Amino acid sequence: MAFRSKLKIRFGDIDRAGIVYYPRFMHYFHVALEEFFAGQLGIEYHTVVDTHRIGLPTVHLECDFSRPFSYGDNIEVEVRILNMGRTSITFGYRVFREGEDDPRIVGRNVTVCLDMDSFKKMDFPDWFRQLLEEQLRDT
Amino acid sequence: MAFRSKLKIRFGDIDRAGIVYYPRFMHYFHVALEEFFAGQLGIEYHTVVDTHRIGLPTVHLECDFSRPFSYGDNIEVEVRILNMGRTSITFGYRVFREGEDDPRIVGRNVTVCLDMDSFKKMDFPDWFRQLLEEQLRDT
Amino acid sequence: MAFRSKLKIRFGDIDRAGIVYYPRFMHYFHVALEEFFAGQLGIEYHTVVDTHRIGLPTVHLECDFSRPFSYGDNIEVEVRILNMGRTSITFGYRVFREGEDDPRIVGRNVTVCLDMDSFKKMDFPDWFRQLLEEQLRDT
Amino acid sequence: MAFRSKLKIRFGDIDRAGIVYYPRFMHYFHVALEEFFAGQLGIEYHTVVDTHRIGLPTVHLECDFSRPFSYGDNIEVEVRILNMGRTSITFGYRVFREGEDDPRIVGRNVTVCLDMDSFKKMDFPDWFRQLLEEQLRDT
Repeated sequence: MAFRSKLKIRFGDIDRAGIVYYPRFMHYFHVALEEFFAGQLGIEYHTVVDTHRIGLPTVHLECDFSRPFSYGDNIEVEVRILNMGRTSITFGYRVFREGEDDPRIVGRNVTVCLDMDSFKKMDFPDWFRQLLEEQLRDT
Repeated sequence: MAFRSKLKIRFGDIDRAGIVYYPRFMHYFHVALEEFFAGQLGIEYHTVVDTHRIGLPTVHLECDFSRPFSYGDNIEVEVRILNMGRTSITFGYRVFREGEDDPRIVGRNVTVCLDMDSFKKMDFPDWFRQLLEEQLRDT
Repeated sequence: MAFRSKLKIRFGDIDRAGIVYYPRFMHYFHVALEEFFAGQLGIEYHTVVDTHRIGLPTVHLECDFSRPFSYGDNIEVEVRILNMGRTSITFGYRVFREGEDDPRIVGRNVTVCLDMDSFKKMDFPDWFRQLLEEQLRDT
Repeated sequence: MAFRSKLKIRFGDIDRAGIVYYPRFMHYFHVALEEFFAGQLGIEYHTVVDTHRIGLPTVHLECDFSRPFSYGDNIEVEVRILNMGRTSITFGYRVFREGEDDPRIVGRNVTVCLDMDSFKKMDFPDWFRQLLEEQLRDT
C-alpha cells in the first residue's frame, strides 16, 4: 500500500467560492512529500536540503481535479515515485477525502536533482538513488 | 499584445531553497487572472463570483518551469484565453522575468463554469460568453 | 496541563532570511486553535462556523517573538483561554520548540462572538459559553 | 503625508467566514513594508537583505482590527516609522479601505537589526540609520 499523509483542510485554506483555493493543493503535495521523506524514505527532507545540499525543484506539474474539498474535510494525500531518471524523479499524488475510494485529485510533478551550492543540475548521488529506487520498486 | 500583469516576488514567497516556492506561482496565476478580468474583460472577478454567482473552479492544470525566480525579481504574468467550450474555458499563462524575452514558466488551467448556488456545472451565460470570446479572438 | 498542538515547520514556511516568515505564526495559531476546538472542547471549529453559524473574528492581537524557528524544527503550540466576556474571548498561545522548556513565542488574540448571518456581535449562546468556561477553569 | 501602499484583496485571501483571513494582514504589512523601502527609503528590501546582509526580524507585534475586509475591497496600507533605537526600529501600519478616512486596522511591529551572517543583533550601520531617521522626522 502506497504511503499516505493525513491532513486537515484548514479555515484559511478556503477561498471566496467556499472551497479549497486550488494553489493550496500544491502546498499539500509538498507537505505530503516532506512526510513521505520522513516516514517512507527514512530521511527528513530538511536533511536532504540543509545537510546534503540537494534541492528538488519542480520542472513540470500536472493535475486533475474532479471534485472540490470543503472546510471540515479530512484528506489523505498519497505519494508515490512514478519514474526515475539519472537527474530527475517524478512523484505522483492522489488526494482522497477520508473514507472515499476514489481520489478527487490526481497529480504528478517532475523534479530535478539540484546541487544547492552551484544551483546546477546533477546526477543523483548513489546513496540517494538507492533510497529512491527502493520506493520505486515497492509502490 | 497579450495582457500582462506586473507582480513582484515577495520576501515571504521564497522557500528554504532560496527560490520562489512553486505553489506560489499558482497563486500568481490567480492574481493575474483577477487582473485580466478587471483590466481586459472589464468586469471585476469578484463581481462575477459575488454578484453573478459564477465560479470557475480549476479541473485541470499543467505547468512547465524552466528557470527559477529569486527574491527581488519583478515578473510579468501573461494571461490569454486559449480555448473555450460550452461549459469550460482554458486560460494560458506565461511568466517572464522583467526584461527577458523568453518565459521561465508556461502553464494553463482548464476551468468550468459553475453555478455558485447549486454548485453544478452550467453553460456560460450569453453575456459572459461574449465577453470571453472577444478575448479569444484578440489574443 | 494546557492543550498543545504539534506542528512541523514546512519547506514553504521559510522566508528569504532563512527563518519562518512571521505571518505564518498567526496561521499556526489558527491551526492550533482549530485543534484545540476538536481535541479539547469536543466540537470541530467548522461545526461552530458552518452549523452553528458563529464566527470568532480577531479584534486584537499581540505577540512577542524571542527566538526564530528554522526549517526542520518541530513545534508545539499551546492554546489556553485567558479571559472571557459576554461577547468576547481571549485565547493565549505559546510556541515551543520540541524539547525546550521556554516558549520562543508568546501571543494572545481577542476574538468576538459573531452571528455569521447578520455579521453582528452577539452574546455567546449558553451551550457555547459553558464549553468555553470549563476550559477557562481548567487551564 | 505618510507613505501608502495600494493593495487588492485577493480571491485566495478570504477565509471560511467570508472575510480576509487575519494572518493575511501580517503578510500585507510586510508587502507594504517592502514597498515602503523601495518607494520611500529608495532602497529595495531585497538589497538590504541580500546585499547588505541585514535582516529585520519581528520581536513584537500588536494589532487592532475594528472592521473586516471583503473580497473586492481595495486597500491602502500606510507605513510609518514610529520609533528608532540603537538596534531596533518600530514600524506602524494603518489599513484603510479605499475612500474611507478611518483605518480599519492599526498595528505596529518592533524589529531588530540582525547581522544575517552571524544571526546576531547589531547596531544599525550609519548609512542605514540615516536613511531610516530621515523618515522618522518626516512622518
